[in-house]
Amino acid sequence: METIKEGDYILIRFKDKRYLKRVESDKNFSYKGGVLYYKDLIGKPFGITVGELQIFKPTLEEIILYGIKRETQIIYPKDTFYIAKKLDLSEGKKLLEFGTGSGAATMVFSSCVGSTGKVYTFEREERIFKTAKRNLERFGFTHNVVMFNKPFDPKEVKDIQFDAAFIDVREPYPYVEAVHKVLKPSAPVGFLLPTANQVEELLRHLRPYFGDIEILEILTRYYKANPDRFRPEDTMVGHTAYLLFAKKLLLDTTEAVNGEK
Amino acid sequence: METIKEGDYILIRFKDKRYLKRVESDKNFSYKGGVLYYKDLIGKPFGITVGELQIFKPTLEEIILYGIKRETQIIYPKDTFYIAKKLDLSEGKKLLEFGTGSGAATMVFSSCVGSTGKVYTFEREERIFKTAKRNLERFGFTHNVVMFNKPFDPKEVKDIQFDAAFIDVREPYPYVEAVHKVLKPSAPVGFLLPTANQVEELLRHLRPYFGDIEILEILTRYYKANPDRFRPEDTMVGHTAYLLFAKKLLLDTTEAVNGEK
Amino acid sequence: METIKEGDYILIRFKDKRYLKRVESDKNFSYKGGVLYYKDLIGKPFGITVGELQIFKPTLEEIILYGIKRETQIIYPKDTFYIAKKLDLSEGKKLLEFGTGSGAATMVFSSCVGSTGKVYTFEREERIFKTAKRNLERFGFTHNVVMFNKPFDPKEVKDIQFDAAFIDVREPYPYVEAVHKVLKPSAPVGFLLPTANQVEELLRHLRPYFGDIEILEILTRYYKANPDRFRPEDTMVGHTAYLLFAKKLLLDTTEAVNGEK
Amino acid sequence: METIKEGDYILIRFKDKRYLKRVESDKNFSYKGGVLYYKDLIGKPFGITVGELQIFKPTLEEIILYGIKRETQIIYPKDTFYIAKKLDLSEGKKLLEFGTGSGAATMVFSSCVGSTGKVYTFEREERIFKTAKRNLERFGFTHNVVMFNKPFDPKEVKDIQFDAAFIDVREPYPYVEAVHKVLKPSAPVGFLLPTANQVEELLRHLRPYFGDIEILEILTRYYKANPDRFRPEDTMVGHTAYLLFAKKLLLDTTEAVNGEK
Repeated sequence: METIKEGDYILIRFKDKRYLKRVESDKNFSYKGGVLYYKDLIGKPFGITVGELQIFKPTLEEIILYGIKRETQIIYPKDTFYIAKKLDLSEGKKLLEFGTGSGAATMVFSSCVGSTGKVYTFEREERIFKTAKRNLERFGFTHNVVMFNKPFDPKEVKDIQFDAAFIDVREPYPYVEAVHKVLKPSAPVGFLLPTANQVEELLRHLRPYFGDIEILEILTRYYKANPDRFRPEDTMVGHTAYLLFAKKLLLDTTEAVNGEK
Repeated sequence: METIKEGDYILIRFKDKRYLKRVESDKNFSYKGGVLYYKDLIGKPFGITVGELQIFKPTLEEIILYGIKRETQIIYPKDTFYIAKKLDLSEGKKLLEFGTGSGAATMVFSSCVGSTGKVYTFEREERIFKTAKRNLERFGFTHNVVMFNKPFDPKEVKDIQFDAAFIDVREPYPYVEAVHKVLKPSAPVGFLLPTANQVEELLRHLRPYFGDIEILEILTRYYKANPDRFRPEDTMVGHTAYLLFAKKLLLDTTEAVNGEK
Repeated sequence: METIKEGDYILIRFKDKRYLKRVESDKNFSYKGGVLYYKDLIGKPFGITVGELQIFKPTLEEIILYGIKRETQIIYPKDTFYIAKKLDLSEGKKLLEFGTGSGAATMVFSSCVGSTGKVYTFEREERIFKTAKRNLERFGFTHNVVMFNKPFDPKEVKDIQFDAAFIDVREPYPYVEAVHKVLKPSAPVGFLLPTANQVEELLRHLRPYFGDIEILEILTRYYKANPDRFRPEDTMVGHTAYLLFAKKLLLDTTEAVNGEK
Repeated sequence: METIKEGDYILIRFKDKRYLKRVESDKNFSYKGGVLYYKDLIGKPFGITVGELQIFKPTLEEIILYGIKRETQIIYPKDTFYIAKKLDLSEGKKLLEFGTGSGAATMVFSSCVGSTGKVYTFEREERIFKTAKRNLERFGFTHNVVMFNKPFDPKEVKDIQFDAAFIDVREPYPYVEAVHKVLKPSAPVGFLLPTANQVEELLRHLRPYFGDIEILEILTRYYKANPDRFRPEDTMVGHTAYLLFAKKLLLDTTEAVNGEK
């Protein structure tokens, strides 16, 4: 049975709160009601209860929500989980991403393409790039991620035919043609856009490069875990972003196939 | 460049509709405005436009939504995409699933654990089992899926320590203890429950086996892709199911760690 | 006790469906399972059960949803109920409305301002105007409604200081200044706008005429009335319109009050 | 033109915040950036701008949200506006309400039934009753409201046939029969229920007294009023309550009408 070691990350659940902490034998977690000395956890299995605390092995979602440093608004797991599979990411796929942001989405994509796949990610802001790099290193997502500290530059990936692309920058419009070029035919692309105006503007730039357009929002509604008073939580996240998906169309192929009409 | 071959599945987009079809050279797709002869597609790349039609390589989501046969209500990709990553599925993980249903969720899980992982799935209804088996075979998801035509039976998987479990049966309550036994410590479990009553009842059975409980619904809100009249679609899916997630607690460990209080 | 008379409207509930019908003694309501002869209802009270049917006195909401003729998309009661009270309509208030549309909103407003209030409503399309007129006459809402078959024309209401205004036309922007003029100071105005683009455009026209701007959508989520399988309905209305509310600002008053800063 | 007088309530909008204040000539409103002396407002019209402040005449919604004292969770205007019209309240109607709570719903109902209607409201907790009484007096809603400091007691209203009833108590089940008795045939009743369990339980008690059952939630989604970055607010109210509506059925009338089957 796997046991907790020095340097491991743990997820502490205390009442309704969650904390992601690193086990360092000379440190402790102090909470209303007591103190947990990390050295007492070493050699113990995950899943144990310590007084009012429950100690778990963190999942990727928890690493993103409670563990990573952020210079920008992170993309929520509710969105990245959907995006990753909507882009059909699986073992061995190659993804283009920009901007990297905090690296939260990059981690999810990395976990989807596995050791035989690859994520190429661009971030132009140096400060943000460095934070993302540290996040990816800290939680072990560098083996299949290639990072660039610059705006998306097709020359850096010119020999690669990507299986999918994910774009999260304020002004994605000028990149539409370049992204189209590096994608495999029919490959899906996803955009994350906080405002309605951005969606409207992007829609004007997608033709004739991309088709099969789909726009949606993902909303999560949480419930109180009380069997006798079951009801939704009082507040919820009202909006993170609009997601726009499309697929690469081959240009000048309209005439390529006979038989219709 | 990958080209369309006899026997390939294609996704046809025609106006606002999508169709998943198998390319058979002696067949055709007839639509309002013309006929597409599949033989004309063979040797052509995906991503082409044929008159009013766009021809794509289907994604997993489209296989599930438009391609599989169903004996029961399928689980929507909006839910399974979230469940798969919430259960922290990635390369090499072992998942327990029951019931299999149409196999839609199984496909998503299979795509997440990859060639080094494994999904063990149980379905007791023979008719449903057979449909799921055909779906998984037809779309190539059998290499890492082990199927059982019976209710969940711990004896069948007694040497396996699972990384996660997903349970979608009408009455999951009697299985809580048995699922707890086959999971690794701290491992996540997910339940899909259509009604509030089921959530209330399950909450009464989870203690002391599972902690860190989270209950939520995923709602997707689609928008019309019109840059000059941007607005949500007139109707939306109102409800599919409540999702309940928890993590395995080790029993009798409350006293195992000193130092608190 | 009030009893059903010839010519009355009744609301028939049969299983999950509702029907609004007029009691005419030589007619009947035929449904799967039987026939209801209206003459048998005359002299009976509302609220009775006839086999599988329940017979009620229709509410305003039911008149709108099941009774009125429509040339255009009606405004849903979920929206008009909110709008009416958000505009602070009550006994004796004077409301300006355009366009009238089917008259559904007009009925709600009429019911709010009562016999001492008044609704002035403009509709430029003759066909739509006539339908609205018939709807209002048929269900008794003409006593406090004044209708104009023309675009909003301030000259028609030049001696009136309105307590509130409600505007539901495709291009409300040119009317902002004229509406401002006929409203009392601080009076609320509401706009119904189906698309995000309209909201964006209107926001650019409201200053300096209106302040205290609020934009929202009203969503209703219905549940199945089954105590053992309580859950939301499978589908829901995804969008009707964005509602924008604001209040009349007096122009050139910034300097009117001393004491600040 | 109506002007601001000593003792009037005003709604101050400052940036994104709203404040409901009483004009007292020896007092002032102090905010980041300055001080507003109320004496300077007296004699001025509503709707004026004073530096960064906008001064409005408060609407009923604002009185409820920013003005009233509360001992309990208030019922939100989004819910009461809908309830009031769903119960078909209009000029002259008689409504039964319990419990009164803070009086927020009572105010909305009072404004709907007008000077010829009446709201009879029961509140058993003395502390809550007194707060509600003060709220109703302070904002002028006592002329058509009759208050009782006791649980709902049919003897107090035994000569009244109510047009509608609204019930907001934790355990409404024992009152179903008594409410049925005091309502006119076919009259609507509304219940406000925070939890799913309460809805399930109430559904078991409604038959055979009430039919035409409808259960829903009202969700409001607010948007930022920025024409160049139009998007929903980051957070939203996730849940206030389930609303259940039904209509009085006459008992033992199933056989009263012939003709069917």
